[in-house]
Amino acid sequence: MIVVFKKDTDAAYIGSFEKYIKSLGFDVCVLGGNTAEIKGDTALLDTEKIKSFGMVESVTRLSSPYKKVSREYRKEDTVIKVGDVLIGKDLTVMAGPCSVESEKQIIEIASAAKKAGASVIRGGAFKPRTSPYSFQGLGKDGIKYLVKAKQETGLPVVSEIISKDYLDEYADIDILQVGARNMQNYDLLKALGKTDKPVLLKRGMGASIEELLMSAEYILSEGNGKVILCERGIKTFETMTRNTLDVSAVALLKKLTHLPVVADPSHACGMSSLVKPLSLAAVSAGASGIMLEVHTNPEYAFSDGAQAVKPEELKEITDALKNIWQFVK
Amino acid sequence: MIVVFKKDTDAAYIGSFEKYIKSLGFDVCVLGGNTAEIKGDTALLDTEKIKSFGMVESVTRLSSPYKKVSREYRKEDTVIKVGDVLIGKDLTVMAGPCSVESEKQIIEIASAAKKAGASVIRGGAFKPRTSPYSFQGLGKDGIKYLVKAKQETGLPVVSEIISKDYLDEYADIDILQVGARNMQNYDLLKALGKTDKPVLLKRGMGASIEELLMSAEYILSEGNGKVILCERGIKTFETMTRNTLDVSAVALLKKLTHLPVVADPSHACGMSSLVKPLSLAAVSAGASGIMLEVHTNPEYAFSDGAQAVKPEELKEITDALKNIWQFVK
Amino acid sequence: MIVVFKKDTDAAYIGSFEKYIKSLGFDVCVLGGNTAEIKGDTALLDTEKIKSFGMVESVTRLSSPYKKVSREYRKEDTVIKVGDVLIGKDLTVMAGPCSVESEKQIIEIASAAKKAGASVIRGGAFKPRTSPYSFQGLGKDGIKYLVKAKQETGLPVVSEIISKDYLDEYADIDILQVGARNMQNYDLLKALGKTDKPVLLKRGMGASIEELLMSAEYILSEGNGKVILCERGIKTFETMTRNTLDVSAVALLKKLTHLPVVADPSHACGMSSLVKPLSLAAVSAGASGIMLEVHTNPEYAFSDGAQAVKPEELKEITDALKNIWQFVK
Amino acid sequence: MIVVFKKDTDAAYIGSFEKYIKSLGFDVCVLGGNTAEIKGDTALLDTEKIKSFGMVESVTRLSSPYKKVSREYRKEDTVIKVGDVLIGKDLTVMAGPCSVESEKQIIEIASAAKKAGASVIRGGAFKPRTSPYSFQGLGKDGIKYLVKAKQETGLPVVSEIISKDYLDEYADIDILQVGARNMQNYDLLKALGKTDKPVLLKRGMGASIEELLMSAEYILSEGNGKVILCERGIKTFETMTRNTLDVSAVALLKKLTHLPVVADPSHACGMSSLVKPLSLAAVSAGASGIMLEVHTNPEYAFSDGAQAVKPEELKEITDALKNIWQFVK
Repeated sequence: MIVVFKKDTDAAYIGSFEKYIKSLGFDVCVLGGNTAEIKGDTALLDTEKIKSFGMVESVTRLSSPYKKVSREYRKEDTVIKVGDVLIGKDLTVMAGPCSVESEKQIIEIASAAKKAGASVIRGGAFKPRTSPYSFQGLGKDGIKYLVKAKQETGLPVVSEIISKDYLDEYADIDILQVGARNMQNYDLLKALGKTDKPVLLKRGMGASIEELLMSAEYILSEGNGKVILCERGIKTFETMTRNTLDVSAVALLKKLTHLPVVADPSHACGMSSLVKPLSLAAVSAGASGIMLEVHTNPEYAFSDGAQAVKPEELKEITDALKNIWQFVK
Repeated sequence: MIVVFKKDTDAAYIGSFEKYIKSLGFDVCVLGGNTAEIKGDTALLDTEKIKSFGMVESVTRLSSPYKKVSREYRKEDTVIKVGDVLIGKDLTVMAGPCSVESEKQIIEIASAAKKAGASVIRGGAFKPRTSPYSFQGLGKDGIKYLVKAKQETGLPVVSEIISKDYLDEYADIDILQVGARNMQNYDLLKALGKTDKPVLLKRGMGASIEELLMSAEYILSEGNGKVILCERGIKTFETMTRNTLDVSAVALLKKLTHLPVVADPSHACGMSSLVKPLSLAAVSAGASGIMLEVHTNPEYAFSDGAQAVKPEELKEITDALKNIWQFVK
Repeated sequence: MIVVFKKDTDAAYIGSFEKYIKSLGFDVCVLGGNTAEIKGDTALLDTEKIKSFGMVESVTRLSSPYKKVSREYRKEDTVIKVGDVLIGKDLTVMAGPCSVESEKQIIEIASAAKKAGASVIRGGAFKPRTSPYSFQGLGKDGIKYLVKAKQETGLPVVSEIISKDYLDEYADIDILQVGARNMQNYDLLKALGKTDKPVLLKRGMGASIEELLMSAEYILSEGNGKVILCERGIKTFETMTRNTLDVSAVALLKKLTHLPVVADPSHACGMSSLVKPLSLAAVSAGASGIMLEVHTNPEYAFSDGAQAVKPEELKEITDALKNIWQFVK
Repeated sequence: MIVVFKKDTDAAYIGSFEKYIKSLGFDVCVLGGNTAEIKGDTALLDTEKIKSFGMVESVTRLSSPYKKVSREYRKEDTVIKVGDVLIGKDLTVMAGPCSVESEKQIIEIASAAKKAGASVIRGGAFKPRTSPYSFQGLGKDGIKYLVKAKQETGLPVVSEIISKDYLDEYADIDILQVGARNMQNYDLLKALGKTDKPVLLKRGMGASIEELLMSAEYILSEGNGKVILCERGIKTFETMTRNTLDVSAVALLKKLTHLPVVADPSHACGMSSLVKPLSLAAVSAGASGIMLEVHTNPEYAFSDGAQAVKPEELKEITDALKNIWQFVK
């Protein structure tokens, strides 16, 4: 870690700084030109803390602040086996409804999704909703129906968990999802790090790429290495799309970490008509798969423009993804 | 709630829409011009859900999606009494260190802060840190020392709570703070809503004003009306300041809600030299007070440029705030 | 255009509103439920102006604020012929150096780019630089050298124009580029609209998709329909990449407008290692081509990490793009 | 300027780098620890260029990239005399309509604004509008009427100039405004730098604080030191306010530059009800004044909620500002 001091910093100040940093267990080497190098396991050292010193102009890490999630820590891609699916190696399509609404609905959609090429079934049971007055999901019943859909289709299932209190209920859920709003709920992350369940960690809508990696590090540092990262759009000034899918993040994450990366184009754009091009874009940028919403509700034809796609569109998307996958995997 | 359909929407579609909305327990009145009005307690209706219908062009609420936090629900300002302090009525200055580091440190800073005009003492014991390798606070000991500082100074104390598991430990803490990263941790919000403790709810760095109000609504909807909102800077493209203090949010919140609003200029800018002007700006825009970091560490003179201010600067700030307060309260 | 008034708006107010809008030459139809529809050529009506009225809650357009650039105005894709290149129909790769530095340099790079699959040569001569002290380009000499590169390679050339004063100098330049900083320099846009030259209009780093389309409309409304839109990254809170390439904008623009859309991944990310995945992502999302920086400078091996790619990387990118193009065109 | 190289950079690479930088006319001092210091007039050196080298991890300036606008270049505040107004020393309130609509309208508003405490009259004649179909201002007639308002009230006037072609028309305009959309129209900035007219330079909605200062530097570097900076809100994810007024930018600019800084709360928030609190906030944060929209149109009572305030509100704002000014000037 290289520290650059302000132009007028005197030697005494740098001396005190050196003494302080050494007291934290690191080596310091004053380099001249108002710079110093801090040596040791600097991932343990908070850049913000160093930056906060009055005469520090800038701090540059020579190694990343995350450790176990980094490519340097582990060169080869992490592959997570869930059922017969190899996430991080094979193209993975996770599909299903936003919320589990009934046993019939989830089984119907799961079956249709499987037929259309999905390899993992998604469905929300405990839903973190912006409004306390919105439907908060079917809860334990939702989990039960999702497990039935798993038995019916033979496909693994993923569902969001919003509190460590529910860990027992999720015993038969294959992948535990941490939603964007809980990406920095460290209490939850630590609890998941103590399990051996695959975790799908969604990027917060206001979270940087580094913050996402640090949240994954929380899980790995507790012992659970099975983390899948998910880009799902960030908040920007653009209002035509609900969020802005950050495909650069997908491409960059593939360089920074060995963990599998997937993208959720449905939530990112909020428009079913953009789901296909964004799915292709995410996989072209390096994603190992996508997660999207699919629906089958003939009774309400008017919901066809939702962010959810129909099974036939899902089929079209998985077919197109397979074509592209051969050139980018 | 007014729904505008796309130009080419046919009557049959609008008919199905009407039927569906009625099935949810609302009245629908088709207005012509491809618009319809949904009547009833529309705070219970999710705008996003309506927007997701294929032929819906836009949805406009005629009443807000939050209820109990709104000015319409309660005209007069909510005033929260904590010790002798009337938050929402009197100018409130919450000051203290970022983290409680020792009994001596917190008592020393709390005493200095009191002398400099602070009316509430802040200090972190359980710290949600971006990195799992950063100091996570003194935990229960931190809480114990903070309570000692409270006894020593006679001032109420505020500290961040990161899990409902710790509610018992916080029995003697006067105000429970929900940090920016947990603003949408609804599991925690609901638990706090079931207590009768004042809650200081910080705006997430990527959270909209409406999302902040909805998170407050979670607490009020569970029965706890003692919520203080805190603007602490949002993420923008600007990199010279750590975050961008959104004083428009302060001014707007005063119109939208009866809850007290404070601002945290220390975290927002990350530079002690901007703490004074931003404190004045926040109070001028309508904030009932500020929350800031103060330190006293003669041994490390080099930390004078941190986001924390010295007691003498705090004195200067509280004096200036009092001068301005008379014209804006 | 549907106008929704605030809940308590009285009939007299709506009456005055109606009268005023009629005075502007539009029809108004009051719909009940505090809504009104404005009819006529509403692209001529400024939404912001209507929104600014005190009792207006929201304004929804039923048709877009742009006209000639819209898909409704022209269903089929606009194809712009430049030399032998059909932009908007064929996969187009525009490549070259950021700045023309010498005759030798531009010819060398142009030749290498052609060999690597580029179909248009780019190069800056008049450079809008953030600092007045930075190199502002070779000016007229740069244009001269670029034209030589055109003659040498037989490929058309594109170069940024920063003032209408230079239109004569650009007589032999095939495509006039409007840079991101000048996207809303309407004086320049109007002047370009009066020429019959193809214009490549870059999206401003802080400009919305709608603002980009409105800027294009300035050019079309003056009579020049040969506009190519270019997504080049927007400003967001993310700092690991220079800007955030908005591929959703690419996908959405293909639906909203008949104009060709290309993407500039080099400027967007600022890292050569991301140029390939972002190029693939942009084309997968619907872009008709990409614009990127390429360099050949064996003498300074250390510049290999710049946003510019080497000719051999360009070759790899164009090959990969061709593979994907067959599935997405 | 301190350059930090990546961890594995070898000596030969640093040697080539050194040679290259020296070829540009700067001194280089290799410091060890993979760092080097570049010495000389580094404001002439583009940070982006250095960052673009493959093995460069980070670049830190020890002096700012701007020169003549910086506090180091000139310690004391620049005060710009316009008529009897001392901008940068006295509290300045610039008020008037968004657009000049008629001679009667501008004289009426200007007179009312003067009475309400305004010291400078604003009014748009050439309007840069997002849509080519929106009213583009009265042009030369608008300028003529504005000059009449100046004669009538005795107050100086400010108006936006959108092209250097119009410089002659603006001979009697006291302050030339560069709008947010033209902040990086360097052709225009250079032309204004060659005049001796005060220039009010608005921050672009997507422009960083540093970019604003660099644009001002363009004007100063051409010889014109009379520049007033104007913060007018930046684009963020928040949609409840039109833009987000960045008061931290106001506070920070006062430290970085000697130029006067004003704020435009009307455009920033787009709501007249927030104009007062934001005006107070901006001046409390260090602004030397504000620029706002005022209107008098009894015939259309419904426009009272526009971003423009009524003369009586303007009076209230100027009175409140005077009260606060004594404590913050």
